[in-house]
Amino acid sequence: MSAARLLVVGGDAAGMSAATAARRLRPAEDLAITVLEQGPDVSFSACGIPYWVGDLVEDRDRLIARTPREFAAQDIEVRTGTRAEELDLDAGTVRTGGGETLGFDRLVVATGGRPLRPDVPGLDAPGVHGVHRLADGAGIRAAVAAGARRAVVLGGGYIGLEMAEVLQARGLEVTIVLADSLPMSQLDADMGERICKALGDMGIGVQPDQPVRAVETGADGAARAVTTDGGSYDCDLVVLGLGMGPEVELARAAGLRIGETGAIDVDRTQRSRSHDHVYAAGDCSQTFHRLTGEAVHVALGTHANKQGRVAGSVIGGRAARFAGVLGTAVTKVGDLEIGRTGLCSGQAEAAGHDFRTETIEGTTRAGYYPGAEPVTVKLVSDSGSGQLLGGQVVGGPGSGKRIDVLATAVWAGLTAEEFAGSDLSYAPPFSPVYDPVVVAARVASRAEQG
Amino acid sequence: MSAARLLVVGGDAAGMSAATAARRLRPAEDLAITVLEQGPDVSFSACGIPYWVGDLVEDRDRLIARTPREFAAQDIEVRTGTRAEELDLDAGTVRTGGGETLGFDRLVVATGGRPLRPDVPGLDAPGVHGVHRLADGAGIRAAVAAGARRAVVLGGGYIGLEMAEVLQARGLEVTIVLADSLPMSQLDADMGERICKALGDMGIGVQPDQPVRAVETGADGAARAVTTDGGSYDCDLVVLGLGMGPEVELARAAGLRIGETGAIDVDRTQRSRSHDHVYAAGDCSQTFHRLTGEAVHVALGTHANKQGRVAGSVIGGRAARFAGVLGTAVTKVGDLEIGRTGLCSGQAEAAGHDFRTETIEGTTRAGYYPGAEPVTVKLVSDSGSGQLLGGQVVGGPGSGKRIDVLATAVWAGLTAEEFAGSDLSYAPPFSPVYDPVVVAARVASRAEQG
Repeated sequence: MSAARLLVVGGDAAGMSAATAARRLRPAEDLAITVLEQGPDVSFSACGIPYWVGDLVEDRDRLIARTPREFAAQDIEVRTGTRAEELDLDAGTVRTGGGETLGFDRLVVATGGRPLRPDVPGLDAPGVHGVHRLADGAGIRAAVAAGARRAVVLGGGYIGLEMAEVLQARGLEVTIVLADSLPMSQLDADMGERICKALGDMGIGVQPDQPVRAVETGADGAARAVTTDGGSYDCDLVVLGLGMGPEVELARAAGLRIGETGAIDVDRTQRSRSHDHVYAAGDCSQTFHRLTGEAVHVALGTHANKQGRVAGSVIGGRAARFAGVLGTAVTKVGDLEIGRTGLCSGQAEAAGHDFRTETIEGTTRAGYYPGAEPVTVKLVSDSGSGQLLGGQVVGGPGSGKRIDVLATAVWAGLTAEEFAGSDLSYAPPFSPVYDPVVVAARVASRAEQG
Repeated sequence: MSAARLLVVGGDAAGMSAATAARRLRPAEDLAITVLEQGPDVSFSACGIPYWVGDLVEDRDRLIARTPREFAAQDIEVRTGTRAEELDLDAGTVRTGGGETLGFDRLVVATGGRPLRPDVPGLDAPGVHGVHRLADGAGIRAAVAAGARRAVVLGGGYIGLEMAEVLQARGLEVTIVLADSLPMSQLDADMGERICKALGDMGIGVQPDQPVRAVETGADGAARAVTTDGGSYDCDLVVLGLGMGPEVELARAAGLRIGETGAIDVDRTQRSRSHDHVYAAGDCSQTFHRLTGEAVHVALGTHANKQGRVAGSVIGGRAARFAGVLGTAVTKVGDLEIGRTGLCSGQAEAAGHDFRTETIEGTTRAGYYPGAEPVTVKLVSDSGSGQLLGGQVVGGPGSGKRIDVLATAVWAGLTAEEFAGSDLSYAPPFSPVYDPVVVAARVASRAEQG
């Protein structure tokens, strides 16, 4: 009997996690695994691109976790520079850009995301860069090296802030142009205002409430300004930080069911809801919110890795289920660290919760210990049950990762009161006697008790 | 009708938290609150003493959170320099060192802890210092200022390590003398070995398996060497870092019930099990382990604060219960950060668990991001149920506070598998894609599944 054939389309986080998980459970004589990757690299860290641009990471290859050769040693065949052009799900074949037709018994679609691009003139001009593939990073680095002095960053999410930070660090004058009124729309407005102020203090310009209308180009055809209803911002470089949508062109053309978010509709084992022998994972796939159960699309490496692993495990014959997302995220801009998890106020309202919010100001270390910095913690909790629904943290060094404590409390379904009683660590170099996240829970718990 | 009288004996974390919580619920016309404190200060941070000795905190007064005057503004009368000499629980009176007799309707005993002192000759000599009261810190600072060159620290727990670090930073040659074979006996031996090696690399001598036999004194009567069966260690300064026992002399003499740990026996409302109108909180009181339910004595400011608050709330008329301890703790020595929570292997065994341990090596940030440092995470989980029982973390900057994530997972009763699925934050400056604590849980979960 010949081995079954697993084909994976897309060789980044989700695809390679799926391949690796399946291989761990089934040897090569039982399952042949081939990964098709259109780009030159697999298993690279898109999240690291800003730091490569910022020269904090000097060598591009450091962003590559594993090479095709390393996967080959695990009997995983990786074909880089190989684009899947068409999927025939009934026939069980994939046609490549090279005209080859490959058969499969199981397929994992891991085609990733694509940077959201507003439909405005000039956006395809040279000088407009996504932050998606390593080639994007190389392009931005080249522009900086060639003497770019002014950058406009479109969007104020994680990637936008990170790019603004590193471009400023490289000596560019940076303006963030926002369609929204504040950066970090996944946070409540009062927290977003703190971030906005910090950006201003750093000398990064923020232009809110200005959807981009056009990218103006110069005589050479390259971007030279971003125009909005509020103004025109000269620049040598435009960075797209508007978020990532799912890349589903191939899947859609093949008739794979697309969900309400526009991403591939899968069940909790990452299996397609329309085709039993097809799986999808990572930025191209739809997932669900742990608290609301709602379908969501969240493009993030952590989920891509876990979802790929679930798909690969199931294909390998072991039961596995993806457990949902809370929308946890962390970033930094300068010395300001920002974290969020669960539902912000707007999401809690949309989900129909009667909820309360509590915001407290604390310090990252004992107030008397050197390096103690202010930190603001905001909690969203359900009125009545007291269940923690979400948290937001904005503050100095040491603030950001505190979101993981809140994410774990929300994940576990703790109430504010239960979490307020928890036994967190204390020593003066690490926190005040009551950690700020616990202070926030205590205030929320007390408010709940009336 | 005159106000009821609450008397609090001891004006540090537990006592002042009790007074404050009671006052928040009952105004002065309803409840008179008096705190007796034998020392000169209330509400000071004993945990900050090492950092004051280390000159990281320059002003002693910064270790004092609030002054008697500030409490007076809340109608809490604080009498410093006033020692409670005798409690008459039936009569409801306290006799002070000044010969005064004060009546009470409710009493909170918050007499704190006392540094454990082995019963060996010379331990009362000048030059032997606890790390308990601000006066201890002043004494050690004076010794350093007077030219002390060599210090012996007895004990390798949190206080011992912190004192070793700061004394070395002040230029002293430091030797840690241990009765045990490794420092940090609340961690498993393999983790303790990592700490021991780091101490050696820092140039701090460690002499294990050597219970102290005597402190030798010089012609002036002051300590000049510590003697064990293994050697004699010359020094100008001896620091007691052997842990804290409960200070219960007053309570015992009054007939208050003492528990099996030697601390005052209280229920979960911090009420004495022998006297209904008497409460105890903080280092003098017995508490219970969240996981095992067993009676334990843990001298730590976090618990003292919470227990005091519980006692004060109950006295104030609001239901409250202390929720138990996990034994969570964090400390640092040089750049090495150390955290622990829940049960270590020895405790899991003693509690009768069939358990497994998993240890993983990770990095504090994405491997390619500057400042990424190694971190070791060890998890203890119940075999069969998979429930997380405890965690230990040892690693570079950014490691220590990760213990809070594990503490929250253990507190919530999550299994390794549940926690492995959780949605923790990721960005290259903060962690690898999978945070090391999650990697450990995943390995434990996989081992559990076989």
